[in-house]
Amino acid sequence: MCWCEDGSCLCLRAFDERRIFLATKKNKLKVIALGGLNEIGKNITLFEYGNEILVVDSGIAFPADDMLGIDLVIPDFTYLINNKDRVKGVVLTHGHEDHIGSLPYLLRDINCPIYATRLTIGLVEIKFKEHKLLDKVKTNCVKPGETVRIGNFSVEFIAVTHSIADSVAVAITAPNGMQVIHTGDFKIDHTPVSGQHMDLQRFAQLGKQGVDLLLMDSTNVEAPGYTMSERYVGVFFERIFEKYQENRIMVATFSSNIHRIQQVVNCAVKHHRKVAVVGRSMVNTVKIAQELGYLIIPPRVLIEPHQINNYEDRHITIVTTGSQGEPMSALSRMAGGEHRQVGIRPGDAVVISASSIPGNERSVSKVIDELFKKGAHVMYDGQEDVHVSGHAKREELKIMHALIKPKHFMPVHGEYRHLKMAKELAIEMGVQKENCFVMQIGEVLELSEQGTKVTTTVPSGQVFVDGSGVGDVGSIVIRDRRILSQDGLIMVVITYCGETRQLLAGPDIISRGFVYVRESESLICDLKDIAKQAFEKWQDSNKANEWANMKNDIKDELRQYVWQKTKRSPMILPVIVSV
Amino acid sequence: MCWCEDGSCLCLRAFDERRIFLATKKNKLKVIALGGLNEIGKNITLFEYGNEILVVDSGIAFPADDMLGIDLVIPDFTYLINNKDRVKGVVLTHGHEDHIGSLPYLLRDINCPIYATRLTIGLVEIKFKEHKLLDKVKTNCVKPGETVRIGNFSVEFIAVTHSIADSVAVAITAPNGMQVIHTGDFKIDHTPVSGQHMDLQRFAQLGKQGVDLLLMDSTNVEAPGYTMSERYVGVFFERIFEKYQENRIMVATFSSNIHRIQQVVNCAVKHHRKVAVVGRSMVNTVKIAQELGYLIIPPRVLIEPHQINNYEDRHITIVTTGSQGEPMSALSRMAGGEHRQVGIRPGDAVVISASSIPGNERSVSKVIDELFKKGAHVMYDGQEDVHVSGHAKREELKIMHALIKPKHFMPVHGEYRHLKMAKELAIEMGVQKENCFVMQIGEVLELSEQGTKVTTTVPSGQVFVDGSGVGDVGSIVIRDRRILSQDGLIMVVITYCGETRQLLAGPDIISRGFVYVRESESLICDLKDIAKQAFEKWQDSNKANEWANMKNDIKDELRQYVWQKTKRSPMILPVIVSV
Repeated sequence: MCWCEDGSCLCLRAFDERRIFLATKKNKLKVIALGGLNEIGKNITLFEYGNEILVVDSGIAFPADDMLGIDLVIPDFTYLINNKDRVKGVVLTHGHEDHIGSLPYLLRDINCPIYATRLTIGLVEIKFKEHKLLDKVKTNCVKPGETVRIGNFSVEFIAVTHSIADSVAVAITAPNGMQVIHTGDFKIDHTPVSGQHMDLQRFAQLGKQGVDLLLMDSTNVEAPGYTMSERYVGVFFERIFEKYQENRIMVATFSSNIHRIQQVVNCAVKHHRKVAVVGRSMVNTVKIAQELGYLIIPPRVLIEPHQINNYEDRHITIVTTGSQGEPMSALSRMAGGEHRQVGIRPGDAVVISASSIPGNERSVSKVIDELFKKGAHVMYDGQEDVHVSGHAKREELKIMHALIKPKHFMPVHGEYRHLKMAKELAIEMGVQKENCFVMQIGEVLELSEQGTKVTTTVPSGQVFVDGSGVGDVGSIVIRDRRILSQDGLIMVVITYCGETRQLLAGPDIISRGFVYVRESESLICDLKDIAKQAFEKWQDSNKANEWANMKNDIKDELRQYVWQKTKRSPMILPVIVSV
Repeated sequence: MCWCEDGSCLCLRAFDERRIFLATKKNKLKVIALGGLNEIGKNITLFEYGNEILVVDSGIAFPADDMLGIDLVIPDFTYLINNKDRVKGVVLTHGHEDHIGSLPYLLRDINCPIYATRLTIGLVEIKFKEHKLLDKVKTNCVKPGETVRIGNFSVEFIAVTHSIADSVAVAITAPNGMQVIHTGDFKIDHTPVSGQHMDLQRFAQLGKQGVDLLLMDSTNVEAPGYTMSERYVGVFFERIFEKYQENRIMVATFSSNIHRIQQVVNCAVKHHRKVAVVGRSMVNTVKIAQELGYLIIPPRVLIEPHQINNYEDRHITIVTTGSQGEPMSALSRMAGGEHRQVGIRPGDAVVISASSIPGNERSVSKVIDELFKKGAHVMYDGQEDVHVSGHAKREELKIMHALIKPKHFMPVHGEYRHLKMAKELAIEMGVQKENCFVMQIGEVLELSEQGTKVTTTVPSGQVFVDGSGVGDVGSIVIRDRRILSQDGLIMVVITYCGETRQLLAGPDIISRGFVYVRESESLICDLKDIAKQAFEKWQDSNKANEWANMKNDIKDELRQYVWQKTKRSPMILPVIVSV
């Protein structure tokens, strides 16, 4: 039975289709998260039916502290590459890095079309340009409310509110009629800056018809209550523009938070200020968002950074990157006095309009301190209302459950405890306990009329990107980097005559990252002596004693001596050359 | 005029002394912070008068993320070592690492007595034992309320409340009668677990007599309101013991927080549970605190970790280290299933009774996740009332100002922004703006009847401790470790005949932390070829062309090629041996 009965809505069609498929097919729908579980970031979910695979999102994660030298972490695409002909398309929910960042790496190996809303497509195309994929990949621009057919899947895009414009959830109808909703990232913002509301009615409508599985953003499940509307930050900006009428005002935020930038621009325009945009990613996003009409800046408001000094302080607003204290970001460089065009002056009002992502607290704190030292008025998280989250808190998650009332539930986006808590919340909201699935990455959830269960796993995990190399740095390389980073390296070089075992040169000691050599001359001398003794012992031994033994002896004895003298364990590399 | 007029109190004596000195001496009092400003930790303050130096505290800091391989950071003691005969004593305010941790390093070079309360002495002696200093250093145990003469300084110890028992502030009277108060770390806890109250009356009394300079803990100046009493956490524990009557209860906290441990023990006793103490530093502190009577555990309550399994779950409480997610701590090892004696079982109630120190958020989050995975009920900061701060918030700082009304003010303990805010708060509370001093480390503040000003600086800064080495790792070594940690290392080894320039062995390529060599064979071959070509070019060049040039050519060409192929910059080390 369809909820709206005038026959005009899409759902009727979907419903009809569903019955037909239900009648004719008995296949299983498989759902696999290749990322987005247990660790933040790198979200990617697969929907598989018969011979077809549909991909939702393809994100990156930023490396953890112990992933030394790694630039990015992407999902392991092995399963998709092994089944590349079956991949019918990639659907994107929104344009954040943790949902689109690994797309260029996926599309190196797989040729399939992309489906996303306009701003998301715009942001993806910046990436494609950098990776020279622009001509290769077919992108399809969709509107919220639209339904497209991808293979035999029917995919409806439903407007949601989030900290980036043009975010959508997806309602996927499998060929057997099974209905799945994947919320993507969302919050329920009843007063969105763009005016585009979250389509709560549509979720309710689908819920009424029957949703077999809900995958829901669990990032903020720990937080009670509701996330405040983005406009709440606008009210704060308004107060700052009133308070610091004579000073320059700078706002650092995520470049993707176009609504926040819009609110800064609105304040600037109201207070007759110019706006300068600083920081590469901010410049890129502002440009694309303006071109596509997501960011409205009246003529003659934008100025170039080099023009800032042509205006009085009270006429200047600066929008910049660096809200996470990233050392190379515009704000860090400004705070450190290292930015080519913009410096911090006493009296500048600086708003860091973001909360610190775990792991970034120290760098953010350092930037705040630098700004204070330069005499700026600094407003930051914990002190002022500089930021609201982009993710739904507990009460909002409950609303979604109340609207959708899914038969099965699978929490996504979050660490294990978030998934666990989201499961408990689902049970509170009426989902059967045995119908809640806290999954591991790579596990396959099979849904069919016969029941729903985790059946098997596919290859999954994380792949490191370092420079231009993808996957060529693994645990052994990282382990070596860790040893080197802790205590550095000692090399001992010995050259001897292969025939006579006569020492020809060395032992020489070279060290890096270990100690100041000049101040540790006696230690270095000792190391040479020890290496020499080990070599001589081998020289005097019988011919059958191989040089590999000598090498190991040198290594062991040096290691022991160094530990005893310094309580350090540098990497010890004997280089033994026989000529 | 003395505030209490019966002549019985110490202040009268101090006041008399003061007048005498005022009449006879015109010398200056110098105050120097060698640590504890701008960065958290490593607190140390010097008071210098005439030919005498008094040291208050001597702490360590934990290394920042970019201090690779560093174990501890201690203050630069150069100034004290250069003036070692003038150092009359070290006064300790309490037993936290950031106030006592560098004492063994200071006392390697300087021989002077220590003054501290009983628990602090107990904790310091554990360190002295480790550093074999126990026989060398004279320790003087003082009581709150006591005044001692150290050189010509008169030092009074005043009880304060903090997150470790037996904390004191110090009131220092200089020979010229100038009165300084250094609060140490404190909060105003009106219901302390130990029953030893903060001596607010004494602060008021001194304030009434006239305090020339106040140095005050500014750690929590960003936080509005009051810090809750330690007993607030006790109420939470009581709730947990009621709720999880059938389960094991584990509490992880700082080993130094004896009052917190006492509250756990009290709950355990009330609920007929045994208490097992796990984690080396926790075992040490519990032992010493029990011996000295700061921790009261009834007989037959303490059990050894290996006895845990002899009891039913409902009879077990475990107190453990690891509240900061430190990878080698007991809690981390239990959560990871790597602890020899204690594992986590489904149903265990685990309280992480601490807030994360900035920089530790990710590791704490990881431990929480592991505990969730093992099926534990986990209670942690942000979710429950598991912790209260040990530092005074804004309203408490105001109380201290209102009681002491110092003429001059110098905020200590905090990053730059905290010091700045504490200055602003002092001005609000009536201190003259020009009498507030936000100092840099090593700056000398001179107080005399003629006025107060910053006059000069003394050598200061931070010294790295790595293993048993103190100060032998500096910026160049750290820079090398950083390069090695990011992209690893490539070595190219070439051996040639010194006379003929004939190649005898190599070029061989050895790499560590760069790429999987097996998967990058063609890259390694290319590198060999490039090195060989550079060598041959040099071979063919005229004799005057030195081998150092060849070495540089090899380095440059390999660097360029590696960057072009991999977008990485490993350290490149050519090892050229001439025989």
